[in-house]
Amino acid sequence: MTQNATEERVLHAVGERRELVNSAIDKELPLQKPERLYEASRYILEAGGKRLRPTVTLLAAESLADVEPLSTPYRSFPTLSDGAIDMMKAAVSIEIIQSFTLIHDDIMDDDDLRRGVPSVHKQYDTSTAILAGDTLYSKAFEIMTNTGAAPEDALESMRLLSTTCTEICEGQALDVSFEGRDSVLPEEYLEMVELKTAVLYGAAAAVPAVLMGADGDVVDALYQYGIDSGRAFQIQDDVLDLTVPSEKLGKQRGSDLVENKETLITLHAKQQGVDVANLIDTTDPESVTEDAIDEAVAELEAVGSIAYAREMAEDLTDRSKAQLEVLPDNHARTLLCEIADYLITRGY
Amino acid sequence: MTQNATEERVLHAVGERRELVNSAIDKELPLQKPERLYEASRYILEAGGKRLRPTVTLLAAESLADVEPLSTPYRSFPTLSDGAIDMMKAAVSIEIIQSFTLIHDDIMDDDDLRRGVPSVHKQYDTSTAILAGDTLYSKAFEIMTNTGAAPEDALESMRLLSTTCTEICEGQALDVSFEGRDSVLPEEYLEMVELKTAVLYGAAAAVPAVLMGADGDVVDALYQYGIDSGRAFQIQDDVLDLTVPSEKLGKQRGSDLVENKETLITLHAKQQGVDVANLIDTTDPESVTEDAIDEAVAELEAVGSIAYAREMAEDLTDRSKAQLEVLPDNHARTLLCEIADYLITRGY
Repeated sequence: MTQNATEERVLHAVGERRELVNSAIDKELPLQKPERLYEASRYILEAGGKRLRPTVTLLAAESLADVEPLSTPYRSFPTLSDGAIDMMKAAVSIEIIQSFTLIHDDIMDDDDLRRGVPSVHKQYDTSTAILAGDTLYSKAFEIMTNTGAAPEDALESMRLLSTTCTEICEGQALDVSFEGRDSVLPEEYLEMVELKTAVLYGAAAAVPAVLMGADGDVVDALYQYGIDSGRAFQIQDDVLDLTVPSEKLGKQRGSDLVENKETLITLHAKQQGVDVANLIDTTDPESVTEDAIDEAVAELEAVGSIAYAREMAEDLTDRSKAQLEVLPDNHARTLLCEIADYLITRGY
Repeated sequence: MTQNATEERVLHAVGERRELVNSAIDKELPLQKPERLYEASRYILEAGGKRLRPTVTLLAAESLADVEPLSTPYRSFPTLSDGAIDMMKAAVSIEIIQSFTLIHDDIMDDDDLRRGVPSVHKQYDTSTAILAGDTLYSKAFEIMTNTGAAPEDALESMRLLSTTCTEICEGQALDVSFEGRDSVLPEEYLEMVELKTAVLYGAAAAVPAVLMGADGDVVDALYQYGIDSGRAFQIQDDVLDLTVPSEKLGKQRGSDLVENKETLITLHAKQQGVDVANLIDTTDPESVTEDAIDEAVAELEAVGSIAYAREMAEDLTDRSKAQLEVLPDNHARTLLCEIADYLITRGY
């Protein structure tokens, strides 16, 4: 019941901001000429998405400014030195970067579906998808230059955004390289997750502090909050793939196992001597049976691999929440705590 | 002889800076982990390239600072208000952006060769090429944030760089869209060229003025210098494709005509009633004869289309050179003038 209440409050907070974020995306990324390019650029953004990262940005700003959530216009948001900036642009920029990575990742992984619709390279074509991603990339930078923050803070936000993007590319490159390798260490996997997924959560949480002119230790703590909760989020994804019924998951349960995708769980199991590659006979998610998955999961449970991943996710979540001590004790901070919890307690 | 002397001086000026730029690229884009990613990112940069755009950046800085070319260290270059900045980083950033566009364009156009070596997606694979381009993209932004310029100037350079990248994407999208269209107006073609090619010359010339804290009219004039000479450069490319012998061109002369690629020349000819699509029977550059090309070129000459393109390139070059009046009259400015001339007088 507590878990459900947390989830409900988080989804409510995210939902309250989603429409604001969506109409800001419309405004910051208008459908201009060449129309096909901008249509393709907006396609995944329009297909859905919780807007979790922009919500983190907006809540971190609200907690730092110590204002009641949604009491203060995001488009004219107070800095820590009596200025006013457009915090919504920062939130939109982060979401646009996320969207760019999805479009290019889907080409690389040849994934047909994204957010329940065809991926951009399937709906349009590969050239358009490459170019749509590239356009989002520069648009995100363009938007971030225009928050109206003090030039040194704005410049620092650009520095954070650009190093974050470089790291995301490095993470994706590591992920791709793992596929061709015999053995990957859990540490290497965690590094990949940090780069591919967590740094953008880090940037989402830290950018508002940078733009508002907060002290370096506040920026660092918020960044680490995002890193740790982002890593927990990804590890939990691996757990959910094995433990949530297929109907709820929206895809075959255990598909990571079937497709021999390395996860923290399989890497741990290998270290325990489990022959993970042969846990399941088939490599076709269509033909696998629920019984086969159950058996595989039971074996992973027996050697403690699922508990290992769960515990690591919980530990990272605790660490991420502890970082929030640097913020004033207020409603927005509580919501950021609950978001960290939600990332590992969400059902799917 | 004057033409040759100009070309010689330009190639000398570019050559003098090439090694400096190349070792700066090595330093700013080190071969770090994941190595395959950075290897692929550096591959086209290492394969060659004149370094024309960084040379424009460095010369514009030297002219503005009114110093004798190569007399002043680029890594600690004077601003207009007694500061010192790393102008080489700006030059490297521009070259890296150029390189990113080449890698992604080659995927979109499925071009096998670039600078005499296999294109990145042929040498590695498409995923690696997408990711290498993405990495260069953020690296260019990262490097541009670290020139040490005054924050407001640095921020303005980021704004210019990001809008430039957006425009390059728009230009590439227009170029791709022309392939599927029955008719393209010369104005539309010129707009595409401006976006796809000229804006990066504009940024190359304007960025040093921005970083050094020059007045807005100086920034604008240098930007326009780059735009006009960049447009002239691209139009001249179309002329060269028809008029330079295949051996010298390094590919079949007239390949644009054979492949029915729209150029300013073909668009003009269509307006004069020429049936451009059937000027040459084959669409295979391998099987076309020199006689067939000669005949087609003669027809384009007869209706004035080649002269039209030549005149436009010359007119744009004159306009670009006139913009340089805002700079102090010095050696570096003369070289920038000569670069504009070179862009349309170069043999290939």
